[in-house]
Amino acid sequence: MKRLIFACLMTFATALPSFSQEVTNTVLDNGMEVVVIEDHRAPVVVHMVWYKIGGADEPLGKSGIAHFLEHLMFKATDDMESGEFSEVVAENGGSDNAFTSYDATAYFQRVASDRLGLMMSMEAERMTDLLLTEDHVATERDVILEERAQRVENRPGALLNEQMSAALFMNHPYGIPLIGWQHEMEGLTREDALSFYRDFYAPNNAVLVVAGDVEPDDVIALAKEHYGPIDANERLSPRARPLEPVPRAPRRVTLTDERVGTPYVMRNYIAPARRSEDQSEAAALVFLSEILGGSSATSVLGQALEFDQKIAVSTWAGYSADMLDLSQFSLGVVPAQDVTLEAAEAALDAEIARFFETGIDPEQFERIKTRIRANDIYAQDSARGLGNRYGRALTTGLTVADVEAWPDVLQSVTPEDVMTVARKVLQPTHSVTGWLMAPDMAEETVQ
Amino acid sequence: MKRLIFACLMTFATALPSFSQEVTNTVLDNGMEVVVIEDHRAPVVVHMVWYKIGGADEPLGKSGIAHFLEHLMFKATDDMESGEFSEVVAENGGSDNAFTSYDATAYFQRVASDRLGLMMSMEAERMTDLLLTEDHVATERDVILEERAQRVENRPGALLNEQMSAALFMNHPYGIPLIGWQHEMEGLTREDALSFYRDFYAPNNAVLVVAGDVEPDDVIALAKEHYGPIDANERLSPRARPLEPVPRAPRRVTLTDERVGTPYVMRNYIAPARRSEDQSEAAALVFLSEILGGSSATSVLGQALEFDQKIAVSTWAGYSADMLDLSQFSLGVVPAQDVTLEAAEAALDAEIARFFETGIDPEQFERIKTRIRANDIYAQDSARGLGNRYGRALTTGLTVADVEAWPDVLQSVTPEDVMTVARKVLQPTHSVTGWLMAPDMAEETVQ
Repeated sequence: MKRLIFACLMTFATALPSFSQEVTNTVLDNGMEVVVIEDHRAPVVVHMVWYKIGGADEPLGKSGIAHFLEHLMFKATDDMESGEFSEVVAENGGSDNAFTSYDATAYFQRVASDRLGLMMSMEAERMTDLLLTEDHVATERDVILEERAQRVENRPGALLNEQMSAALFMNHPYGIPLIGWQHEMEGLTREDALSFYRDFYAPNNAVLVVAGDVEPDDVIALAKEHYGPIDANERLSPRARPLEPVPRAPRRVTLTDERVGTPYVMRNYIAPARRSEDQSEAAALVFLSEILGGSSATSVLGQALEFDQKIAVSTWAGYSADMLDLSQFSLGVVPAQDVTLEAAEAALDAEIARFFETGIDPEQFERIKTRIRANDIYAQDSARGLGNRYGRALTTGLTVADVEAWPDVLQSVTPEDVMTVARKVLQPTHSVTGWLMAPDMAEETVQ
Repeated sequence: MKRLIFACLMTFATALPSFSQEVTNTVLDNGMEVVVIEDHRAPVVVHMVWYKIGGADEPLGKSGIAHFLEHLMFKATDDMESGEFSEVVAENGGSDNAFTSYDATAYFQRVASDRLGLMMSMEAERMTDLLLTEDHVATERDVILEERAQRVENRPGALLNEQMSAALFMNHPYGIPLIGWQHEMEGLTREDALSFYRDFYAPNNAVLVVAGDVEPDDVIALAKEHYGPIDANERLSPRARPLEPVPRAPRRVTLTDERVGTPYVMRNYIAPARRSEDQSEAAALVFLSEILGGSSATSVLGQALEFDQKIAVSTWAGYSADMLDLSQFSLGVVPAQDVTLEAAEAALDAEIARFFETGIDPEQFERIKTRIRANDIYAQDSARGLGNRYGRALTTGLTVADVEAWPDVLQSVTPEDVMTVARKVLQPTHSVTGWLMAPDMAEETVQ
């Protein structure tokens, strides 16, 4: 068992609320990782089980199965009725939920600290004894299909995202939608779900994260009691997804849909993610995102396109550092009335070119450094925020040590680092550009 | 055992050489299909074994393994030295080769008829007793990597094709290059090859095609003798590749490479392939391809862009009907000097629009019908051509009856059928457009 002190950086110009955390991590005999984050600010605990399995690990032709199984985990087990899990949590004054990402599937409950053992007993139960009836599977398949209808089919912007990712990723399953392709979702069966469950839901593929008003020894004792008896899955093989080939050519996607009220242009570049013991590129990309698109009033794109040239009503830049294999760096412009997507894209390209020439304003850089430090602190404001930080990291190839190092890595980024990573990432051949527009705009804006 | 008479259509205005074939097909007890095509024009026989396994059946992350294994099948077996197979064929006055497609892997020899049994004994030997040494695997991996270097890396047009297919197919493995992504080819191992071999090289996954100066009863007796004793693979599951989602948005890819001497624009649309008992759409697409791009002097694109407007030095249309799941319909324009790719693409689009308005010239249609009939006859000019026809069909979901029906299906296509399939297939949302150009053209032609 390793015990680590994780003290927040406190060198603020402005005073920010903060506290010190003790983080304990260990591994049970069956391979289950345990992370305990002490946070005694409130008498609550967040109990999370993170499985190292997500949308990018799905078998060929079974897109959506990771998310589907997440839904089905709230159905019956040997000892619980369908829906009983959440009912018990609620009866105990708690709340629970779950989510699926490309790299992880997580289940969590927020309850009073003295209910932790109960949560573990129920979570251990559904790690091993899930029962699925054909009825439950059929009902829940309708639920996920409706979810897709609402979140994707009814939203042209989501459809564009789907098409852009499919065009950007030539080989990696990040190009397949997390919720699933509709035609494959329609064919998902009980056996598909059970097979995925048997293959990947096991203690040696899971990380237990407990954050809150607890003592590490108590948590570990409870974990041994409830999760310790579960057998490891000896057939579990290391995660290995197909990687991307060298990208050779810029790609473009134009989605025309009569429901589009606000047209826009966006561009996604393949970008590195945080890597264990090698987080500096990702940290520089966090800065690049803030510099180019962080705040309308001060960002490079906001100042130029919204305020100076007045050709955009909004601009953005986006980057998520926490991915197992690869991430995307995203830029976008919503043009002002009567500005074509073509003109908006040309202005975006001109602004990027100008950025490479003029570099980074030192004052803006310092402001952003302060803001990133503040965001980092705010994210620790809840036990759940703390738990997420560790769970996400430990399911995307990082370690507790990487999580601890991250604030320092961020604070040590220099403007030169940012320009270096910008030159590496913002290459046209690594990108897909998307246009979202209504049919009546097609005549005006596409040659 | 089923015995079928396949007589060529003989209703020609111009006399074409032809002959009648007898086609016999049966299935051995171990599931191996046998097709015998009698062709007594010359005392030779073509012996082919077609496996129903190809590039689109490869495990995730193992692109190129189907083609790699094809190479390795010429290495040692229990009873043969590496290279001995081809040496024995040559010593017997024959020639041999093999090829891999997305849907099949085929091995064939052309020898004097009395050597058929010898060919079968050797082919049966390498169906079961392939031995692979680490040395052979390493050497041959260098060979396929060199093949990729020559055929793809050194050819910007091939790189563009690769990128276009990756952008067009969002889910189906037809979007992954048949020869493999370089980074995955580099990692292919002996165990990968043996695992693929054990999973898919089995009599119940193979079609034996023998075409030439043989009697069906003799061939079947030999097949029983040599292939009959091989056990079926009971673990073999039906082929099921991930299918494409509904395409929503036109895609574009621009490949800029300093080695490009001849820039061009091309567009690929996802198109249906021949389907068993439902070949009429594919037949109409064969006509569409001929009508739009078949011959410079008379095709729609050739006449308009090369001869009338003189803005293209060449144009083409392409379609391959023989794919298991899906095919592509392809159009291309090589612009004349000083004509930009943008102008060439605009002219291509204008010509397609005009085609939808004016429809098909009846005289052109009749000429094309005659040419297709002639092509069909010419393709039967060799035993190998005949064998290919059946082998390809039987490994892409078709039957002997479909092969026999195909000439009639082609001859019954009407101009209306062609316009209907053109409207269905030539939709921008179903397409990817590629530009191939040199860097110095980028400034002129891309906004």
